[in-house]
Amino acid sequence: MSYQTIAWDVNADNIATITLNRPEAMNSFTVEMADELEAAFNRASEDDDVRAVVVTGSGRAFCAGMDLSAEGNVFGLDESQSPTLEDMQQRLDAPEIHAGVRDTGGRVTLAIFNCKKPVIGAINGAAVGIGATMTCAMDIRLASEKARIGFVFGKIGVTPEAASTWFLPRIVGISRALEWIYSADILSADEALEGGLVRSVHPPEELLEAAYALARKFTVNRSPVGVALARQMIYRNSAAPDPIVAHQVDSLSMFYTSIADGKEGVASFLEKRDPEFTSKASQMPPFFPW
Amino acid sequence: MSYQTIAWDVNADNIATITLNRPEAMNSFTVEMADELEAAFNRASEDDDVRAVVVTGSGRAFCAGMDLSAEGNVFGLDESQSPTLEDMQQRLDAPEIHAGVRDTGGRVTLAIFNCKKPVIGAINGAAVGIGATMTCAMDIRLASEKARIGFVFGKIGVTPEAASTWFLPRIVGISRALEWIYSADILSADEALEGGLVRSVHPPEELLEAAYALARKFTVNRSPVGVALARQMIYRNSAAPDPIVAHQVDSLSMFYTSIADGKEGVASFLEKRDPEFTSKASQMPPFFPW
Amino acid sequence: MSYQTIAWDVNADNIATITLNRPEAMNSFTVEMADELEAAFNRASEDDDVRAVVVTGSGRAFCAGMDLSAEGNVFGLDESQSPTLEDMQQRLDAPEIHAGVRDTGGRVTLAIFNCKKPVIGAINGAAVGIGATMTCAMDIRLASEKARIGFVFGKIGVTPEAASTWFLPRIVGISRALEWIYSADILSADEALEGGLVRSVHPPEELLEAAYALARKFTVNRSPVGVALARQMIYRNSAAPDPIVAHQVDSLSMFYTSIADGKEGVASFLEKRDPEFTSKASQMPPFFPW
Repeated sequence: MSYQTIAWDVNADNIATITLNRPEAMNSFTVEMADELEAAFNRASEDDDVRAVVVTGSGRAFCAGMDLSAEGNVFGLDESQSPTLEDMQQRLDAPEIHAGVRDTGGRVTLAIFNCKKPVIGAINGAAVGIGATMTCAMDIRLASEKARIGFVFGKIGVTPEAASTWFLPRIVGISRALEWIYSADILSADEALEGGLVRSVHPPEELLEAAYALARKFTVNRSPVGVALARQMIYRNSAAPDPIVAHQVDSLSMFYTSIADGKEGVASFLEKRDPEFTSKASQMPPFFPW
Repeated sequence: MSYQTIAWDVNADNIATITLNRPEAMNSFTVEMADELEAAFNRASEDDDVRAVVVTGSGRAFCAGMDLSAEGNVFGLDESQSPTLEDMQQRLDAPEIHAGVRDTGGRVTLAIFNCKKPVIGAINGAAVGIGATMTCAMDIRLASEKARIGFVFGKIGVTPEAASTWFLPRIVGISRALEWIYSADILSADEALEGGLVRSVHPPEELLEAAYALARKFTVNRSPVGVALARQMIYRNSAAPDPIVAHQVDSLSMFYTSIADGKEGVASFLEKRDPEFTSKASQMPPFFPW
Repeated sequence: MSYQTIAWDVNADNIATITLNRPEAMNSFTVEMADELEAAFNRASEDDDVRAVVVTGSGRAFCAGMDLSAEGNVFGLDESQSPTLEDMQQRLDAPEIHAGVRDTGGRVTLAIFNCKKPVIGAINGAAVGIGATMTCAMDIRLASEKARIGFVFGKIGVTPEAASTWFLPRIVGISRALEWIYSADILSADEALEGGLVRSVHPPEELLEAAYALARKFTVNRSPVGVALARQMIYRNSAAPDPIVAHQVDSLSMFYTSIADGKEGVASFLEKRDPEFTSKASQMPPFFPW
């Protein structure tokens, strides 16, 4: 598989790096990049050689937002359509809705959401607009001291997208989400840290290694199916109306992991040795996805 | 429109100030005040000359809670009714339910929730009972050093209201919400800041100007429709069971703002000038409200 | 009622202490302990002499997780079953599902969730696996300086349980929940405090008294029915899709408490004396549970 707007690499630790790779344009976002990112996250989800994903940008920027200089309608919309909520609910993948109405950033963040692997954002520089909202769907964000993050949609008369209004309040609380989106302020790395958007701030040259070190903690001696289930349980159960929903899924998850990698996990624990897990995230238990 | 219990003012920056205005009674809350606040927030929502709302209190207090000295049943209830959840779900606006059962504070906070404009609380003094819960439905709270905030319902044997159990955990997390409601403690401004309930603490004489400065950041060079949509998206999408719901709404929101103020927004950005947005929150796109 | 794996005590302040009581096994969790905890929380919920619950561990540990040395399949599962989500939704209490599939930790946390009394965790030492997730369903957690808390499921190839993926993100935010569960790190008391999981850290010998002092704040001069309603409203309304749901419940809650303990509460307030509430949590208003 080859990409035009991103780079894909898997290292010896089975950590995939997806690099936004249009440095001449500050990695600004295009429909092609959306398509490639969606494909790359689906690939990372299904490829058993990938155990975690780190996302970063090439050159100075992480992603400077939608490429507003691209030809044609920058949002790819056909004004003759008058889409309704019913259209979006009933035929989200119909060609005219997919190409003409669906938010391209949201296609990417839904692919991240559905990914079976931990996803870590390594924000190396400017992350603005979709460059900021895209990271909200990642599990954890690390920032370079040079990172600048802005939910700047208000400045150009549009609204936040990429399902960020679902993700961001879960990360930073609803009042801070409102203020950051209303104000469209550009946040420094320290402001993002203070607000809880990023987990830690690093010198530029140490950012990627910090992300990889965290990814290794999430993958070494971990069950691929266990991690994939845990990720989906945290996101989906946390949004459930009642903990009974979590209990139903937990019970199935414990049942199926216990008769698989859980046996080896308990044995290795009792024998005080490292486990050797054999499950594959490409082969999930029958109740997945629920 | 004239009010008995509140004051209404719109300044040159199109920021409405709603002042709880019964200073002789520490702005304590009455059914009349509930009716006037509900009307005032609906007015602010529909009046295109209003771009944001600041709420404060006249005199020493913000709002000292329900006026327990008012004649008749202070909660306005008719004991002969035996309302059920079905009553509340199916005929919330039936006269006997509206007047006899519906929580008056909740009528106000639902009007705030549905408002198309940012709402900022400027808590100038005591904010107790409904005086505290009312502010939870506001987007952001600023406090005077003299503010004292208390979810004191437990002290008189009743429960939190005004939909505060929906709002407060989203602002401060569920454990802090539980502790503050169980304990019924009166929080100092600094405690409220520490807990994340208020965004910043100000000397009394600087509180209102700080609120207006924030409101200007939210309104100057902002699209009225864009801001109205962003507000509802943050509240409603953050409570959705799945990010796909946000994606459906995002896509429509981007579609309709992009063919309106978004065009001017992009043009002004590329031309490096301030935008001149023409949308009106009184005329929302066809998918609103969803 | 006598217990084998826990101890039950109610003090003069009507605070029940549930002590995990297998100190020789670091209070590790067994099916018998699950059954006894479920029974004890149901008892605390219905016993009008109990006004709040403190949970702690006997000896050095709080709870060192599932007892992996127990005979038979440690997770109590019958591999010949192939349970589906429909099984869990439609016959959760069928004997073969209850005994063979349902997560035992979840049975305990659902009993805590449904309890009508405030529940405070006093984490005196190691709280690992179910020892950690069990506390997430408690309203507030206090930690000894010696507490060590770990969501260690990943180390043995299984997933978080006990509905912790519903509770934990509400307490500490979704990104921290993801990191703690992926990493399976053992957190010190200070790390748990920093992350918002515990409210305060205490010298070991002061932990229980701090928990009791907090419990007294939640119970002295408080309405039993008012507290029970507030607890359920905070948990359930905070997960509702729209604040209108909270408003419907609030209205009923205010109606029924106002014609009961609320009358005495207002009278005592106006007369500047302590209230004498007479409601009983064993006799809830007709709309409960909703």
